[in-house]
Amino acid sequence: MSALVLQSDFGLDDGAVSAMYGVAVGVDAALRIHDLTHNIPPYDIWEGSYRLAQVLSYWPEGTVFVSVVDPGVGSDRLSVVARTATGHYVVTPDNGTLTHLEHIFGLTELRQIDETQHRRPGSEESYTFHGRDIYAFTGARLAAGAVTFEAIGPRVDLDRLVRLPVAEPRLQDDAVVGTIDTLDVRYGSLWTSIPRALFRELGVEPGERVTVRVHHHDTVVHAAQVTYARSFAAVEVGEALLYVNSLDRMAIAINRGHYARAFSLGTGASWRVTLVPVR
Amino acid sequence: MSALVLQSDFGLDDGAVSAMYGVAVGVDAALRIHDLTHNIPPYDIWEGSYRLAQVLSYWPEGTVFVSVVDPGVGSDRLSVVARTATGHYVVTPDNGTLTHLEHIFGLTELRQIDETQHRRPGSEESYTFHGRDIYAFTGARLAAGAVTFEAIGPRVDLDRLVRLPVAEPRLQDDAVVGTIDTLDVRYGSLWTSIPRALFRELGVEPGERVTVRVHHHDTVVHAAQVTYARSFAAVEVGEALLYVNSLDRMAIAINRGHYARAFSLGTGASWRVTLVPVR
Amino acid sequence: MSALVLQSDFGLDDGAVSAMYGVAVGVDAALRIHDLTHNIPPYDIWEGSYRLAQVLSYWPEGTVFVSVVDPGVGSDRLSVVARTATGHYVVTPDNGTLTHLEHIFGLTELRQIDETQHRRPGSEESYTFHGRDIYAFTGARLAAGAVTFEAIGPRVDLDRLVRLPVAEPRLQDDAVVGTIDTLDVRYGSLWTSIPRALFRELGVEPGERVTVRVHHHDTVVHAAQVTYARSFAAVEVGEALLYVNSLDRMAIAINRGHYARAFSLGTGASWRVTLVPVR
Repeated sequence: MSALVLQSDFGLDDGAVSAMYGVAVGVDAALRIHDLTHNIPPYDIWEGSYRLAQVLSYWPEGTVFVSVVDPGVGSDRLSVVARTATGHYVVTPDNGTLTHLEHIFGLTELRQIDETQHRRPGSEESYTFHGRDIYAFTGARLAAGAVTFEAIGPRVDLDRLVRLPVAEPRLQDDAVVGTIDTLDVRYGSLWTSIPRALFRELGVEPGERVTVRVHHHDTVVHAAQVTYARSFAAVEVGEALLYVNSLDRMAIAINRGHYARAFSLGTGASWRVTLVPVR
Repeated sequence: MSALVLQSDFGLDDGAVSAMYGVAVGVDAALRIHDLTHNIPPYDIWEGSYRLAQVLSYWPEGTVFVSVVDPGVGSDRLSVVARTATGHYVVTPDNGTLTHLEHIFGLTELRQIDETQHRRPGSEESYTFHGRDIYAFTGARLAAGAVTFEAIGPRVDLDRLVRLPVAEPRLQDDAVVGTIDTLDVRYGSLWTSIPRALFRELGVEPGERVTVRVHHHDTVVHAAQVTYARSFAAVEVGEALLYVNSLDRMAIAINRGHYARAFSLGTGASWRVTLVPVR
Repeated sequence: MSALVLQSDFGLDDGAVSAMYGVAVGVDAALRIHDLTHNIPPYDIWEGSYRLAQVLSYWPEGTVFVSVVDPGVGSDRLSVVARTATGHYVVTPDNGTLTHLEHIFGLTELRQIDETQHRRPGSEESYTFHGRDIYAFTGARLAAGAVTFEAIGPRVDLDRLVRLPVAEPRLQDDAVVGTIDTLDVRYGSLWTSIPRALFRELGVEPGERVTVRVHHHDTVVHAAQVTYARSFAAVEVGEALLYVNSLDRMAIAINRGHYARAFSLGTGASWRVTLVPVR
């Protein structure tokens, strides 16, 4: 039996998440059910996609994730189960939620859920809560071993997967350029798309200074010099730093401050960040 | 062993919920403990009552719910365990928390907790946290099979149950009239008390238009025409719709918007909603 | 196998807590993992310390707590495991998090985590998330019995423990003096450092009146007469009361109100409270 991990944009203020738990417990009372987060901003598929990539590799192989950020519920978007190259499973509407997982870890196979077979008994007249009726139910059965991946439904060509646009981080002259993908929410650190390996090509050593420049669309909205440091403790309280985050990508923070709020910065494909060594 | 599901208005910011979990784990380390929600607005018995009805039927028969919205802790309000007609149990102060469960599913038996026998050992001098000392403790013992329903304490006549006032939804000329019972919190949809079956008597088909009129006390505060649709995806983004929610009742929403905030609407018995077909 | 209980200041909006869960599940899939709270205000070691003391004794002996409020991650602060006099374990950075546990329950032994041996395999190049790589990993192994307390690393002299300053509550003429240690967050009650036993020396009986006086630093910022009551139900809605909280200490509240917000009061060592019987 594998762990079942749930994610959604439902929040924890009403009964939606608990109904999903109840359905899963009804499938198999011995299941271990955990959460990724249920505080994905409503309808924010990008954020749901990113959070899956943030945690995937810390869960054991075979873990079944159910991710429900589903603004298209009731449309003709597919319901799918993906198997990642790492051997994890993700049950989700096919709406872009698998973007970062494919980009970072790779997908090996995609199957469409046959909704005539794989849905909570009695839910045929329910059209607005597939998270409970299809995704939690199917994820629980997969985690419990009550259905195999192959029996979920027909194979879907990976070329047909719905993808969100992702800009590839790159070297450009003596700088690296990427996007602000998300925030470390509570601390306000900017998590960029720039991998440590790419940044290393600039030859910057811990303790050296780097210029951070942020564009929103085509306008520079922020520029600052910060110290490249191994950890927050290497700089003063209130001082800015560039560091390698827990996803092995470059991040920018203020020690005990909130970088994004301090400079009114946002996240997504329209927020571009450039790192230039100060020499 | 049955699942134990906890609900409260304690929030998750301090240690109150964790203390309840600890007491339950101390009763039986093998118990599976889950949450309904702990974000019921403080003292809001109506909301606690509604959330129980929202999730009950998605949990397996025998599941034990503990619900602690308890502004009268320390008064002479009773502590009770109810058995529903669906075969679930609810451990709660008798203060109206069972209103919607009785109304929608029915109760078959009510027992008063004998607090001299059924309380956390050592808690006799504690008067302000029955959620931990009596309800979590008793709910855990019931779920674990350490005590039977019959041994909880004396039977209480169901006529003596404390009930919140609930207005019955009804047909009135060519319209149906109900109340706005709660919100789908994050999305701002209005969840009315009008069952699908009652609405169907109006003979409205998907795609047809319906006038929504909202009274607060005796004043009309909102009126709009919306489309009756099977799901959000049937209307444009930003368009309003009337649909059947996951409780099989009529609900009103803006696709990817927040209806309640858009029109400053609230919930409860003083918020009346009328649905009239446009013909 | 013991329960594993996690606390942090990470919030539940991103994947940080889920990554810790994944690491623990990877250690042993049979572990029971629960939460204290993850909403400790960012970097607030005092609050983390207090919440541990709020719940410790309600969890079974042997329970392993992991508490990660870690502004000094990457500095030379130690990583430790403490054993309390009650037979519980706490895995934490040594930064003051153990202050209230030591003060209220006592510590019997402290060991430094040998980070060369006890860290998630593959995490050697990770410097910013010890909560996941060291604390959750080590806590899970300790709870699962995969490592003994003695094998965690070298014993540390308890004299070297990092402590936050705590003012001892005391009798002073005909009054008791303490601090406002924290709030019952959702209800706004002031939780003081004054134990019931100390207050009893004033000889005040339930129903009698007490003057509450609050100093912030050296200035009186609030004074009021309140009723000493066994529970909220003993006073009117909207009336203030002094009562014994669930930690067996004196607390001040407004029945169904929010005392701290009503009078703009804060918490911590600089907020002093004096209780004087009205005679």
